[in-house]
Amino acid sequence: MSIVYIIPLFGLLALLFTAVQSAWVSRQDAGNEKMTEIAKHIAEGAMAFLKAEYKILTYFVIIAALLLGYMGYSHHNSDWTIALAFIIGAIFSATAGFIGMKIATKANVRTAQAARTSLARALKVSFTGGSVMGMGVAGLAVLGLGGLFIALKAYFGAEAGTAEMIKTIEVLTGFSLGAESIALFARVGGGIYTKAADVGADLVGKVEAGIPEDDPRNPATIADNVGDNVGDVAGMGADLFGSYVATVLATMVLGVETTSLDNFGGLAPVILPMFIAGIGIVLSIIGTFFVRIGENAGLSTGAVQRALNMGNWGSIVLTAIVCYFAVNWILPETMTLRSHEFTRTGVYGAILVGLVVGTLMSIITEYYTAMGKRPVNSIIRQSSTGHATNIIGGLAVGMESTFLPILVLAGGIYGSFALAGLYGVAIAAAGMMATTAMQLAIDAFGPIADNAGGIAEMSELPKEVREKTDILDAVGNTTAATGKGFAIASAALTALALFAAYVGVVEANGYKLYNAINIYKADVLAGLFVGAMIPFIFSSLAIRAVGEAAMSMVEEVRRQFRTIPGIMEGTGKPEYDKCVAISTEASIKKMLLPGAITILSPILIGFIFGPEVLGGFLAGATVSGVLMGMFQNNAGGAWDNAKKSFEKGVEINGEIYYKKSEPHKASVTGDTVGDPFKDTSGPSMNILIKLMSIVSLVIAPTLAEIHGKYQTTTAKVEQEAKKPVAIEKTTAMLPK
Amino acid sequence: MSIVYIIPLFGLLALLFTAVQSAWVSRQDAGNEKMTEIAKHIAEGAMAFLKAEYKILTYFVIIAALLLGYMGYSHHNSDWTIALAFIIGAIFSATAGFIGMKIATKANVRTAQAARTSLARALKVSFTGGSVMGMGVAGLAVLGLGGLFIALKAYFGAEAGTAEMIKTIEVLTGFSLGAESIALFARVGGGIYTKAADVGADLVGKVEAGIPEDDPRNPATIADNVGDNVGDVAGMGADLFGSYVATVLATMVLGVETTSLDNFGGLAPVILPMFIAGIGIVLSIIGTFFVRIGENAGLSTGAVQRALNMGNWGSIVLTAIVCYFAVNWILPETMTLRSHEFTRTGVYGAILVGLVVGTLMSIITEYYTAMGKRPVNSIIRQSSTGHATNIIGGLAVGMESTFLPILVLAGGIYGSFALAGLYGVAIAAAGMMATTAMQLAIDAFGPIADNAGGIAEMSELPKEVREKTDILDAVGNTTAATGKGFAIASAALTALALFAAYVGVVEANGYKLYNAINIYKADVLAGLFVGAMIPFIFSSLAIRAVGEAAMSMVEEVRRQFRTIPGIMEGTGKPEYDKCVAISTEASIKKMLLPGAITILSPILIGFIFGPEVLGGFLAGATVSGVLMGMFQNNAGGAWDNAKKSFEKGVEINGEIYYKKSEPHKASVTGDTVGDPFKDTSGPSMNILIKLMSIVSLVIAPTLAEIHGKYQTTTAKVEQEAKKPVAIEKTTAMLPK
Repeated sequence: MSIVYIIPLFGLLALLFTAVQSAWVSRQDAGNEKMTEIAKHIAEGAMAFLKAEYKILTYFVIIAALLLGYMGYSHHNSDWTIALAFIIGAIFSATAGFIGMKIATKANVRTAQAARTSLARALKVSFTGGSVMGMGVAGLAVLGLGGLFIALKAYFGAEAGTAEMIKTIEVLTGFSLGAESIALFARVGGGIYTKAADVGADLVGKVEAGIPEDDPRNPATIADNVGDNVGDVAGMGADLFGSYVATVLATMVLGVETTSLDNFGGLAPVILPMFIAGIGIVLSIIGTFFVRIGENAGLSTGAVQRALNMGNWGSIVLTAIVCYFAVNWILPETMTLRSHEFTRTGVYGAILVGLVVGTLMSIITEYYTAMGKRPVNSIIRQSSTGHATNIIGGLAVGMESTFLPILVLAGGIYGSFALAGLYGVAIAAAGMMATTAMQLAIDAFGPIADNAGGIAEMSELPKEVREKTDILDAVGNTTAATGKGFAIASAALTALALFAAYVGVVEANGYKLYNAINIYKADVLAGLFVGAMIPFIFSSLAIRAVGEAAMSMVEEVRRQFRTIPGIMEGTGKPEYDKCVAISTEASIKKMLLPGAITILSPILIGFIFGPEVLGGFLAGATVSGVLMGMFQNNAGGAWDNAKKSFEKGVEINGEIYYKKSEPHKASVTGDTVGDPFKDTSGPSMNILIKLMSIVSLVIAPTLAEIHGKYQTTTAKVEQEAKKPVAIEKTTAMLPK
Repeated sequence: MSIVYIIPLFGLLALLFTAVQSAWVSRQDAGNEKMTEIAKHIAEGAMAFLKAEYKILTYFVIIAALLLGYMGYSHHNSDWTIALAFIIGAIFSATAGFIGMKIATKANVRTAQAARTSLARALKVSFTGGSVMGMGVAGLAVLGLGGLFIALKAYFGAEAGTAEMIKTIEVLTGFSLGAESIALFARVGGGIYTKAADVGADLVGKVEAGIPEDDPRNPATIADNVGDNVGDVAGMGADLFGSYVATVLATMVLGVETTSLDNFGGLAPVILPMFIAGIGIVLSIIGTFFVRIGENAGLSTGAVQRALNMGNWGSIVLTAIVCYFAVNWILPETMTLRSHEFTRTGVYGAILVGLVVGTLMSIITEYYTAMGKRPVNSIIRQSSTGHATNIIGGLAVGMESTFLPILVLAGGIYGSFALAGLYGVAIAAAGMMATTAMQLAIDAFGPIADNAGGIAEMSELPKEVREKTDILDAVGNTTAATGKGFAIASAALTALALFAAYVGVVEANGYKLYNAINIYKADVLAGLFVGAMIPFIFSSLAIRAVGEAAMSMVEEVRRQFRTIPGIMEGTGKPEYDKCVAISTEASIKKMLLPGAITILSPILIGFIFGPEVLGGFLAGATVSGVLMGMFQNNAGGAWDNAKKSFEKGVEINGEIYYKKSEPHKASVTGDTVGDPFKDTSGPSMNILIKLMSIVSLVIAPTLAEIHGKYQTTTAKVEQEAKKPVAIEKTTAMLPK
């Protein structure tokens, strides 16, 4: 039983690693005065964003916590502790974003300075920055989940198979709800912010005022650079924190339902996912040591990509090996979940399925978004006939790119279920997410290098510096795309596990589902339709918000140019923080409606139409969300790299085209359309589908109680007649 | 019982009306020599397309008929007659397209000539052309369904509640399969053709050769004008023929399963949908007399739109009234379907629900695509900042436009089911489609007027002529958009009815579904994912095909310019038919893969994974297909009208912009992107979802037999344990 107490220690280990690495980054040379001045503006801007964002989110957290506490209090099966767990989840998620932003705004300028020495040093600084964030997120998640589990177990006096254990996990779901809500706000808000600032800065600065890109006189330039940190670092950090917690939690919920005769008081299936997460931290730390290149490495992306791959594959292979022993040590030979028996060998097989699905997903995503491959080349060719054909080409690539990933995902669901039932589906996702720390390190180093490039440019450092950061940035673009493929696949599996958990909780709380979410029933099918529509309206609001927020930014910059004396001469200091605040407020305001739709729609559907219709709704939202996520992420990534291909020159029908050619202009249009796709609405899809499932899981007991009562009174008879549409009776008259 | 014999008479009445009206159109003045010359080229081109298309489709029909016949022969429950029914369905569908094309290529030039006199006459000629097509389609459908039903009933000696009656309906499903397969090929092929010709003609003619649009020296110009007839007339005719048949058939399949003590040998629920379709023809004929404007009507769209609305609403209101008496006359007071009892009042209510859903769908679609409304205005505003923001705006509008229609649709499903169970869902669709003849007349008059405008331009008729045809064309654009909204809604309801019918047939043939398509099961959920992906890959292939077919066209035109002497001086005659054939072959070749995916994927999924997974697959494809259809149709329509708005000038931030301004150029990009959306992939979605359901319904008996055997042997025990995931057993340990 004492194994439970080891888990938070993994989390503490990660945070210790974070602290050590963070101190190392801080000790690095931050360069000359101009560099530190610019870096300071970016850091201040990032902090201004955090301030504004957290202020608004505090209101949300307080209101939601009160509602949750009331629901917990009035509902016999829970109590006010769920509100506390929710608040802790929100704070942890916010902290994860904070850590990421802090280190990223330190590492950017130091990476620029390191790039004056060598590519190897620049990689070391930027990747260390990324790994601080990765370990911070993973450490907080494991510490939070493990620590809360111990505390709640003690508080409720819970043992396996008791009502108290159910309560423990129910309250833990509140933690995940807190984490995932903040993740949604951070991801969408950050996504709107970064693209609005990007477009806004370009429109006023380059077009209207005629000053170059990244010019410090433009108050929106800093916002633009802040945007990278806000969207790609903090947004992604909160996102992955939420995902990680949700995945582990989903497995725990199903684990509690699993009958297991083991050496851990029957809790082995609950402990396993947390333990794997903990072990994953250690393996990720080991993996980080693989990520290095020689001082004499040539100036090409090859070596850097190989180093990152070494770290990534290294930790994945290690996970596959270590999980074998962990599973055999912790789990008993057989377990039973909802009368389906499965073995620990099956569970290990499911973990391998998860790792394979994740790997294939990354490979396929890379194929669809990488330079030099058929999809991106087709967009390049279609750029030669204008803007419209470029757009058609990108949309076609995005839609096509759903084909293989969906087959892989469906195979993964089918395979992991066949190996270990519903628990298998959940643990496959947990296995996939085990190396989150490493994944995030690889993802976060990209925007750090990107920012370093910007700082190098603004500080007029020698050209070679920019060349080195550009190499890192290019590799970062690829890892960002594959990271998104990975995220959507794990989200799909997690959502399914949460869906299964939801069904269990509904049944357990007195609402009969007759073992099915039956889409053959008209009301459930109607729910499926409405659920599938949500990702469309969400995406619509998100991409439109980018356009409108950009306009707000434009107006603020115009105002500053008009009213601050000496701003164009460099004697008046632009009010960067005001610009940042305007953009922040606009983006947060614009993300309230999509956020509200995500959180409120399952509540409305559930309370009005009951648990089974909500089941249909969730299935629809999950399927459609996964497809829209893949479509938008990959279309955006492909457009981006089609545009980038013109920098080196591309051949279309025997002619070579470069930047500023007509086909290049068409490719810029595609890239701009792709920006909100791949950085705002697309990556929000995975949070959307998980958050809806978690909300449903949290309200499930109350929902089941209310509708269960209804079911047992007058409606019962009618319900019985309607529910299992009794085809048998008719078949008598049909031929056999 | 003799009421059955009345039904084909309605069909004959429609065909008689078709013949009379067609003769009237032929008698109209076809204008001067130049006009008839151009019209001849278009007619010849259209015929060349038909020849090429039908040649290729003949192979498909023969192979599919042989396979169907073999399946029917080897399967005890059916026989070779299904192959015959399939062939008849295919021939009828092809004939519907043929009739439409014939009359449209006659009415176009006569409309142009009539427009020399007055708007009222031009409307009369073009609308009469449209109604010939509408009545032709409806007449063939009612004649085919009614006649085949009578013939098969006699052939099998079928009575209500017997195996022979099941067989009758099963074979009739073959008729629908034939119709819907041709519909898919006609719609996608036509859609690719028209947009490829459009883009191809512009690229070589206007850009390369520098000759004006619609210049008869350009060999692709005729193909462009043929395209309007191929895509918007023949494609739509086959589409609506297939939809109409599928909708009536779906209700009949459920009607056969319904226990009904009535005066029609227990067949009242089977007869009702056919009878409503027949009555709808009469009411549509009456409705056509409302469509007229005064000789002195002003030159504005208002009067024309009002006249069409009169005809449309008139026949819908008449349907609502007449159905009340028809339902009360034909149906008994109560009936039972799958142990769910419902009343005839409920059935009438469901019909009203269908009419309301259809009406709301049209209104919402119009809102999202009409000039002067918020959505189109938002795209116009976003055109002021360039191509990219125009695209983002259109995509956002398209995605947003799924919101209300899905709520209406879900409400319609919920409401019609509550009123009369599954039969209610089916009859709601049938009610909605009752006035198909009228709908189609209104839809088809648009492209006729469009062609008339082209002929007027090419023949250098006075400007007032073009003004009048433009007014008709503008109204036609609106009716085309609303027609698509209507089509997708009725397709959704029809697919659901077919889905329900599929479940019944599977159960009846020895495969136990335990009364559910349970998406809580991993394999069914995997099927849901794969099904939902199909509309994405289909759309990807369709929109890419437009781009690639356009390139083939470009090459052929270049060849003719090079090799035909005197072509540019007007002395050498361009080979219009070669150009048409090239484009035809390219478009038909390109549509083979999407067609194959649509037809083969349910077969593969069904035979490999069994009937329940196929159920999940169908639900996924239906939901995703409806959403993708709405998204693409409405985005395309909105982009189109945003561009058209510039013709009269639009105000953006206080400035007025016209054609050739920068914002207008951006709007042209959106329009071009929207073309394949709204005319190729978007309108294919409704056929795709119905065709997949019909294919599944046709293979259901064989499928159930094969997997039923598997189910009863070794797998049975396991299946039993797995299927109804026995949550009850676990709930014992969970708190109440």
